[in-house]
Order: sequence, then C-alpha cells, then structure tokens
Amino acid sequence: PPAWGRAPRQPPGLPLAPCRAFSNNKIMVELDESSGVATMKFKSPPVNSLSLDFLTEFCISLEKLENNRACRGVIITSAVPKIFSSGLDITEMCGKSTEHYAEFWRAVQEMWLRLYGSNMVTVAAVNGSSPAGGCLIALSCDYRIMVENPKFSIGLNEAQLGIVAPFWFKDTFVNTVGHRVAERSLQLGSLHPAPEAHKFGLVDELVPEEKLQEKTGAVMAQWLALPDHARQLTKSMMRKAVLDRLVAHREEDIQNFISFISKESIQKSLRMYMEMLKKKK
Amino acid sequence: PPAWGRAPRQPPGLPLAPCRAFSNNKIMVELDESSGVATMKFKSPPVNSLSLDFLTEFCISLEKLENNRACRGVIITSAVPKIFSSGLDITEMCGKSTEHYAEFWRAVQEMWLRLYGSNMVTVAAVNGSSPAGGCLIALSCDYRIMVENPKFSIGLNEAQLGIVAPFWFKDTFVNTVGHRVAERSLQLGSLHPAPEAHKFGLVDELVPEEKLQEKTGAVMAQWLALPDHARQLTKSMMRKAVLDRLVAHREEDIQNFISFISKESIQKSLRMYMEMLKKKK
Amino acid sequence: PPAWGRAPRQPPGLPLAPCRAFSNNKIMVELDESSGVATMKFKSPPVNSLSLDFLTEFCISLEKLENNRACRGVIITSAVPKIFSSGLDITEMCGKSTEHYAEFWRAVQEMWLRLYGSNMVTVAAVNGSSPAGGCLIALSCDYRIMVENPKFSIGLNEAQLGIVAPFWFKDTFVNTVGHRVAERSLQLGSLHPAPEAHKFGLVDELVPEEKLQEKTGAVMAQWLALPDHARQLTKSMMRKAVLDRLVAHREEDIQNFISFISKESIQKSLRMYMEMLKKKK
Repeated sequence: PPAWGRAPRQPPGLPLAPCRAFSNNKIMVELDESSGVATMKFKSPPVNSLSLDFLTEFCISLEKLENNRACRGVIITSAVPKIFSSGLDITEMCGKSTEHYAEFWRAVQEMWLRLYGSNMVTVAAVNGSSPAGGCLIALSCDYRIMVENPKFSIGLNEAQLGIVAPFWFKDTFVNTVGHRVAERSLQLGSLHPAPEAHKFGLVDELVPEEKLQEKTGAVMAQWLALPDHARQLTKSMMRKAVLDRLVAHREEDIQNFISFISKESIQKSLRMYMEMLKKKK
Repeated sequence: PPAWGRAPRQPPGLPLAPCRAFSNNKIMVELDESSGVATMKFKSPPVNSLSLDFLTEFCISLEKLENNRACRGVIITSAVPKIFSSGLDITEMCGKSTEHYAEFWRAVQEMWLRLYGSNMVTVAAVNGSSPAGGCLIALSCDYRIMVENPKFSIGLNEAQLGIVAPFWFKDTFVNTVGHRVAERSLQLGSLHPAPEAHKFGLVDELVPEEKLQEKTGAVMAQWLALPDHARQLTKSMMRKAVLDRLVAHREEDIQNFISFISKESIQKSLRMYMEMLKKKK
Repeated sequence: PPAWGRAPRQPPGLPLAPCRAFSNNKIMVELDESSGVATMKFKSPPVNSLSLDFLTEFCISLEKLENNRACRGVIITSAVPKIFSSGLDITEMCGKSTEHYAEFWRAVQEMWLRLYGSNMVTVAAVNGSSPAGGCLIALSCDYRIMVENPKFSIGLNEAQLGIVAPFWFKDTFVNTVGHRVAERSLQLGSLHPAPEAHKFGLVDELVPEEKLQEKTGAVMAQWLALPDHARQLTKSMMRKAVLDRLVAHREEDIQNFISFISKESIQKSLRMYMEMLKKKK
C-alpha cells in the first residue's frame, strides 16, 4: 500500500523513454518566476493533435519544469481557438511501421505517466473541445476548469471511431467520475457538452471565457497555498495504484496497441475517419 | 489488466454449466430481425421468481441470442403486471438436498456471468418491483429504465430476510452506485421507490408506463449506433475484474452458499418468510 | 473475496495490542439496556484530542460493549461544546521517543480497526468540528449525522499541517465520498463546513442541534430493525478489503510513521503549529 510519508518517485514515469530530436514549436511555455507558475499553451493548429513530435515536446517541457525548483505549478491551455486538443494524431496510427507504432505509443504512455504523476500542481484551463487524448490530458491534471460554452465538448469518444480506450485511460476516467458514469460514457463514446461534463464531475468548474485566466490563477494559488511535500505525498498516494499498473504492463500494452492498430479492419476505419475529416474541411 | 484491444471471451461464463431438461415457457423471447433487437419478457406468474427452471431457461435463451449474429441487443422486461422479478425462488432454498442447493446456486451464478458479461447491448425495462435477484438482473444490464410509479421499488434487500447478498451481487451494485450508497443500502436491505432509486443512479431513467416501450427502443438504438466490436471490448474492460472474481471463486462460492443456507437458523427464517408471503395472499 | 455467509472476525483488529494502564475518565459510556444502545460521549476538554490515554480508553470501552450481548449499537458524540474531536494529539508526536511513537501509532490503528470493523451499529452524532482524526472517527461509523451549524467543519486536513493522512485514512475516506472528492479534499487539506460536507456525502444528514439526539435515536432504531447476523456479515463484506490491508501492513505502517514523524522538518512544523495553537488561546 502507499506508505505513510514515503517520498513519491519523481516523476513516476522514470526511466525516461529515450529522447529523440523534435521540433520545438508546438507548445509555448512561460514560467512566471514570481508566482512559480508555468503555462503550457498548445499552439499546433489546426487542432492541437497529439503527434509524436507534440508528445515528445510535451514530455521534455514538462520534465524541464518538473526539475526547475522555481516552478511549483503548471497551467495547461490552448492557443488555438475553440479547441483544447483533438487527441491522438491519427496519421501516426495509419499506414506506419510496427516500430513507428511502438515509438508513438510509448510517447503517449510517457505523456500520461509524467502528467498524472507530476509533483507540480497541474490545472487544465479547457478553452475548447477536448475529445479522446485531449480529454485524457485534462483528466490527468489536478483540477479542470472549462469554458462554459455548450459548443465545447469533452469525453473519451474512442468507441465512436471503432477503437477502444486503453485501460489506463479508463482508470483515470473512473478515478474522476466513478465506475458507472465511466462505463456508460466509454461504451457510448460520449462527447459531453461543457454543462453536462460539469454536472457529473468530468470538469470541476465552468467559467465564461473572459474569466478563465483569472479563475485559473485563483485556483492555482489555492492549491499552492499547501506545503508542497505533504501535497505531493498525498497526490502520489491517490494515484500510485493506477500509475503502477501501467508501469508494470507497459511493454504488454505497447504490443497490444500494435497488434490492434495493425488489423486491416481498424486501419480501414481510421482511413475512413480521416477521409471524413478532410471532407469536413 | 484489461488489455488494449484484446478480444473479450464470449461469453465470460464459459465453460457452461451442464445443460438440463427444462420447461420452456417462463420467458417469452421475440427477435426483431430488422433492428437486431430481441425482447425477453418474463411471464412466470405470480411474481417471476427465479426458480431453477426459470434460470435455466434464461441462460439457454440468452445463449441462443448471443450466438445469433442477427441479434445485437436484448431488452429485458416483464409480462406480469406490477412485478419485474421478485428474485431468487425461496422454495429452491428451503428443505432441499445439498445437491439441489449446488445446482441452483450454479444456475444463479451462470445467469449473472452470462448477463453481466454479455456481448450484446442489454437494456432493462423495469416495469414493476424488482427486489433482490430481480434487482441483480437489472443491475447486470447496460442501462436501466424504470416506470416512474413510486409504488414500484428496487433494491438488494437480502438483509431484511436475514440473509446476505453474495460478494458478486455487491460488486455489481458498487459498480453501479458507488461504495457508500451500496454499503448503506445493503446493510439496511433497502427497497427504494423508483424516484429514490433514480436519484442515486440505481436506475438511469424514469418514464411513465405508457412511454416505456418507446423510450427503451430509443435507448437501444442509441447504444446500437456504436460499432459492436469497440463497444464490446469497452464493456469487457469495465466488467472483467468483477466477472473474473466470481469465475476464480465459483466452487468456493457454491460451498459457502450451501453451508450458509443449510443452517437451521437460516432455514427457519426462510420458512417464516414463506409463511408470511402465503398469508399476504 | 468476502465469502457468502462466512462469519466476520469479531472484531477484525484482533489480536489486541497489549493493554496498558490508563485513566478512565475521558469518555463517558452509558448503556441503555432496554434499547441495546450505548452512548460514548467524549469529555476530554478542551478539544477531545486523541491522546494515547484517550485512544486506549476508547478501545477498551468499545471492546467491552462489543462483548456485551445486551449492546447492539453505539452512538458516538461529544460532551465538549463546539468540538466533536480535534484529532490526534500533537503532543504525542512531538519530541518523544521512537518507542512512544510506535505505541501511539499502534493505538491509533487499533482504534480504527475496532471501530471500522465493529459488529455493532455505529452512529456518529457530530455536534462540533471534527478535523483529521476526529473526522476519521466519524467516517468509521455506519452513519453520520451532523449539526447543521456552518461554523462546524469536518475533513481530513492533515496536508494543511504539512503531514499526510495514512493510506487507511484515505481508504476510509474514498469508501465514503469516492475517489475524486477524496483526492481533491485530501490534497487541499480541506475542512468542509457542515452544509458542504453534507452536499458530497461526507456526512449523511444535517439536523438542528436541538434535534440531534432525537434524530440519532431514530436512525439507530432503523438500523437495529435489521437482523444482526445478516447486517454484520454485510458490513464485513463491504469493509473487509480495507481492514485487511492495514492488518497486512500494520508493522510497516508503524515504521513509516516513526521515520516520517522523526524528521526534523516535520518536528519543526508540528512545533510551530503547537505554538500557533497556544497563541490562539
């Protein structure tokens, strides 16, 4: 069991997946040294999709902040209008090599292990729609504030695409909204408009868009008022079981992803989905 | 852990308990091949109690539908006015042989393993009261719609009879309403009037009796809009831990049932309860 | 898994920590033999803090009631105005020997094992503030009624003091309010005013102070209407996993407490906190 007063590993995802060259322009990071609060702003138009480059940049940026003693909290938000993040980049899962799938999936895992297990206070300022992997990022923070616009929706809608959210997406979701809401929402692949998402606790708070920054700052200040050490140990106690589960089954999870995504039926679904997205434009 | 994209066993309760001869008239089954939706209608008056015959017929009917590729969803409802199902048939638990208790209990387990683990979409249209085992059937479906009549009640009221719901009844209940509501409701053996049951999520929706069929059809259509494969894998991921727990402890659970139910004190309670029911008539 | 109809150990915390001499005047115990209901009233001013003496007296009193066949239920309340219990006595954790820390922590564990695992119906009549260990006592009962005064607050606020609630405090909290509410509340070390505590299920019911006794009696009568044996087995089934977890890691938990509490940084925080409390007076 989580031990009384045992220091959490920092971060729990270590050892790191080996680094790779990456473009450094998909996420804007600003650290306000006076408050100790950094902002990570996604700026990868059109929809902040989580490509391998994006995920790698995310992990490296987060790691830098994690190791910077001047930084105690991170706000995650989007610079792209109307979209927080559209989730995993489908082009990374379509018509690529087994090695590529493995590298991509490891990066998705790494992102979650680092964010869900971060020692910093993490607040998601969800200023647009946030399906699938975008929702996972929000779920992995300590607190979620969403713009109250009912046109913005959030949810783990993988089933709608004919694919299945991995068990650790599910675990994170269950930890947030409970088993029953998760079961129903995951099976239906629901995207919940902001007011509905708030009603059952998928997001903690709704605010008008013009109040988002102010409210996010206030929430961050409230969480930073706690002594770091006690807060970190408490967070680790709450999340350790679920983090450990992926760590223990990481390679198996990658193999499962590869064999699932390599199926012709799944490739076909994804190609059709991409066609549909192109036509939408 | 549940694996990403690993196919669920179908159904999880296999291998089957050996079949037995059974009367085939307690459940009316109709399959609408155009929609792919079957209806199982309980018609075992006076109270649709779950006798060994009823359970055997239920399992065989469900298995047939499960193996019929034309069938994708099942609606479970009652043809008996005011009662969905009164739960396990007490006469099967009273004054019978050890062998009979074992056979009966195995059939109860089988019913739950097949229904909770079904690959089909399962919707309970709860058109009457639904205590104990009747409640379990509703809990084991994917979605529960109940007639809004406050005279109809639902709950795992075993404790009121001096008996204890088995751990897998409890697990199914906790997965639906959470630990605290389950703890309180099970200890008090509460039967919740429909509006109260809806309030804490024991049923998902209330409708006037005359709208039940229409609403059930609409909900079924919503669930069937999802690709079967993704929905089935997701369902399996959510329910596998609890299903596996009974599979792993099935014989032990039967032995526990036998030794509990064979106690003279328990037999006496059940006889008194049956006397009371007779007088009520 | 919890077995169908297997008798619970009574109480689950056995074997007992060795008894010790103790003052017998911190808790007033009265048993009404006609109803089978005992009242344990904390009268250890100024704040009913859980000292080693208090805890020892609590365990012995509870054990006596547990073994008294005339007693079926216990109401836990306070004789000190405005405070239910302020939680663990900080003087027991400050500047003492390793042996003392071990003895103290074992007593805290014992208190919880006996109360959370009690075969009796336990109702907390929370008639004042109830932080930290005081909150744990309320959480460990079967039902919590709180005076609706918003000046009274309740919560596991350890993080505010720079310390961490042990895993079994957390488990008890999660079993009551669910994972997400617990995660947020524990990380923020929140003390919730009574109305807020009621809103998310940390307490089951609010009443005006003058109605507390009447309401508590009515709730107790409702729970005692159930057959003891079935209710006890059901309670054990719900709580066994969490109780077993501490039993299995009890010595490790004590060692963790000692090494945590012995840190100079922690000792310093606690001394500062005590200074602050003194000045408040």
